[in-house]
Amino acid sequence: MRKPHKMTRKRASYAQTYIINQQTTMDHTSSGQFIKRRLDDLAASGSGEYIWRPSFSKDYMKAAELLKDWLADEGFRVYVDPVGNVFGRIDGESDRVALFGSHLDTVKDGGKYDGAAGIVTALTAISETVRRVGRPRKSIEVVALVEEEGSRFLSSYTGSKAITGKLSFSDLDEKDSEGISIMDALREAGLEGWKEEAFAGAARSDIDSFVELHIEQGPVLENKGLNIGVVTSIVGLCSYYVTIKGKQNHAGTTPMSMRLDPVAAASEFIVGMTEYTRMVSDSAVFTVGGIRAYPGISNVIADSVRLELDFRDGVGGALDKIRAELRRQAESLEARGFEVIVDIRCDEDPVSLDPDIVGIIDDSVRECGLKYMRMNSGAGHDSQIFADMVPTGMIFIPSHDGISHSPLEYTSEEDLARGEMVLEKVIEKLAY
Amino acid sequence: MRKPHKMTRKRASYAQTYIINQQTTMDHTSSGQFIKRRLDDLAASGSGEYIWRPSFSKDYMKAAELLKDWLADEGFRVYVDPVGNVFGRIDGESDRVALFGSHLDTVKDGGKYDGAAGIVTALTAISETVRRVGRPRKSIEVVALVEEEGSRFLSSYTGSKAITGKLSFSDLDEKDSEGISIMDALREAGLEGWKEEAFAGAARSDIDSFVELHIEQGPVLENKGLNIGVVTSIVGLCSYYVTIKGKQNHAGTTPMSMRLDPVAAASEFIVGMTEYTRMVSDSAVFTVGGIRAYPGISNVIADSVRLELDFRDGVGGALDKIRAELRRQAESLEARGFEVIVDIRCDEDPVSLDPDIVGIIDDSVRECGLKYMRMNSGAGHDSQIFADMVPTGMIFIPSHDGISHSPLEYTSEEDLARGEMVLEKVIEKLAY
Repeated sequence: MRKPHKMTRKRASYAQTYIINQQTTMDHTSSGQFIKRRLDDLAASGSGEYIWRPSFSKDYMKAAELLKDWLADEGFRVYVDPVGNVFGRIDGESDRVALFGSHLDTVKDGGKYDGAAGIVTALTAISETVRRVGRPRKSIEVVALVEEEGSRFLSSYTGSKAITGKLSFSDLDEKDSEGISIMDALREAGLEGWKEEAFAGAARSDIDSFVELHIEQGPVLENKGLNIGVVTSIVGLCSYYVTIKGKQNHAGTTPMSMRLDPVAAASEFIVGMTEYTRMVSDSAVFTVGGIRAYPGISNVIADSVRLELDFRDGVGGALDKIRAELRRQAESLEARGFEVIVDIRCDEDPVSLDPDIVGIIDDSVRECGLKYMRMNSGAGHDSQIFADMVPTGMIFIPSHDGISHSPLEYTSEEDLARGEMVLEKVIEKLAY
Repeated sequence: MRKPHKMTRKRASYAQTYIINQQTTMDHTSSGQFIKRRLDDLAASGSGEYIWRPSFSKDYMKAAELLKDWLADEGFRVYVDPVGNVFGRIDGESDRVALFGSHLDTVKDGGKYDGAAGIVTALTAISETVRRVGRPRKSIEVVALVEEEGSRFLSSYTGSKAITGKLSFSDLDEKDSEGISIMDALREAGLEGWKEEAFAGAARSDIDSFVELHIEQGPVLENKGLNIGVVTSIVGLCSYYVTIKGKQNHAGTTPMSMRLDPVAAASEFIVGMTEYTRMVSDSAVFTVGGIRAYPGISNVIADSVRLELDFRDGVGGALDKIRAELRRQAESLEARGFEVIVDIRCDEDPVSLDPDIVGIIDDSVRECGLKYMRMNSGAGHDSQIFADMVPTGMIFIPSHDGISHSPLEYTSEEDLARGEMVLEKVIEKLAY
């Protein structure tokens, strides 16, 4: 820590307002309150009626400024890369970097915790660890990543792809729903990445590890009464549009035995795939979120049905088997005279997180005396972009009722504090 | 027949153009061609690119005028009742009436045969029978009924309800999609029924029987290689909107065991109801024509699904059992935590046709040496309105590929001729 005195003073002054226990290093009750207060401040920084930080927007940049102020106050060296990722750095003995953080953007009408909890918890844990243990061996950085959600630019993961060298300059041509390209958005936000030579500077080769704390966005930890999820893999995601075409006919005059009813066929398909998924893997999920019959009139056997479906499983799971079962069931419908059109929107294999870092997180949770489980992440995260480039790990903290992408999103101060406590141990193990 | 000479002359003159065999009474090849030609003329009488005769419209009234010309030419006494039903009458020894016919209105972009085939076949069969056998004992009338389809006024069956005294004057307040009431439509078409005293004259008490020939609008006769369907009942029709509400959640992070997925539940319900219907009755049908999930996104477990469903069965069928099974399955979903809302749009019991008239039609078909079956009508018809007021029967002729309500609707000249031949026998038995 370069300016421990200043940081301690600032923290104390901030703490006068919000923190009950005014020790130099906070106890974990205090750290939970402190993190929660900053998440409230970030949420309140927007100008709208609800939380919405689409990347590079005015509200996004305001939140980034607030974060930069906090980082500077805490004694971090603050910088912004050409695509808008905000970093706070504590120089260590080495230039190699242990990176922590998550994304700063939110979906429309989202919550306070998705992404932001990982950034604020990391900056708190780094400050506390440096204050407690001193100058680290490796340099430590916290990062607030841009555009993870894809809620403005559909391809998503812009920030993490830029850092890992997976984003090409031509990717900046992607446009949002209003026709504004990433390049235009960067220029308008005063970021340098719209110039090709500057853009190249976003890619990093000095990072030794990335650890992301994130809310679970699911109900498992809360339901099992656990404090922490140690993520071992991020699920592979298959998103298909399946159209089943039958034969449109009169619902009254066509006997059951003479029908080619795509709604009945789709129902068998959904029941069959759901049962198969439950049977083949405890961790797999299969969801038909969208279904619609055409023309969609009660007294007409439909011409066709369109399903928008999604299935996922982790490393070592059943993704291949589910893909094969889906093909088999589609072929079985075709053998009965239906036409089945499968439009593959997305088909990604699962990503393993680094076993050594998973082990380090395991150890850290145990040292804190917390209840935990190893688990897959069912949602996508920046960590999956980092995972094949640098050793990567993820820590989940509970989401109340599993709710996310909603103003009802909630994680208790106690759970935030427990996450922060685990992160401190992980930082010690990775950077000292 | 009041003017047999005139009628024969006119027929011959019409026949010069269209009929190969110029006998005074036609053979059945000729009658099929003759009926087909008149159906073509009716179809061509409209002003649009496709066939569409919404009741009381200009195109409807043009078709009615054409029909009135034909009836007058054939020697029928022509009159129009206050709601626009067109009648052609052959006075018999008695004033009691044997009524034959069907509806003149069509759905939008409909076919040449639905409704019209029954009118033209009846007027041909009456002419031929009177020419062949002479003055009938009972008076015979052919009727072209208004508004059976409900394609303009949703309540449907306006013409047959008026004749049977089931239409009240206040029913004329019903509006079409453009806000025009039946009353306004009557006034604009120059019909008298918009005046209450005139309206009352539409109800009849002089009708002894009603027999309707209609295309099957289903594939059964063609698939079984039969010529005629003798309709014993018109199915009861239940049309329900069923909404299943579950719990909206993240499709990736919510394990299969922790879901309340309404799409999966709706699929089980559809599979269950379809299997039950097939098992419980050969004649019952169950159709989910409309299905839609909300919000309907692939990566979100839906909040709710809305089904638009329809089930039907004939007299002595399983309608009550299917109603009970649907309740049972809905309750079973509710026991699992789903909310099920059933909105009953229509719930009508089946209607039996008159056993004596069914027997007369049976005998007539056998005398003609045709292949036939007794069957339910899966669609609604004016006959169901008549059935509890006067002895009523229905004759089905085949629909190619079961197609109806489409320009592809087709019934061969041979099948039209066979229907006409059967009708002649029925007329003899009912009116002589």
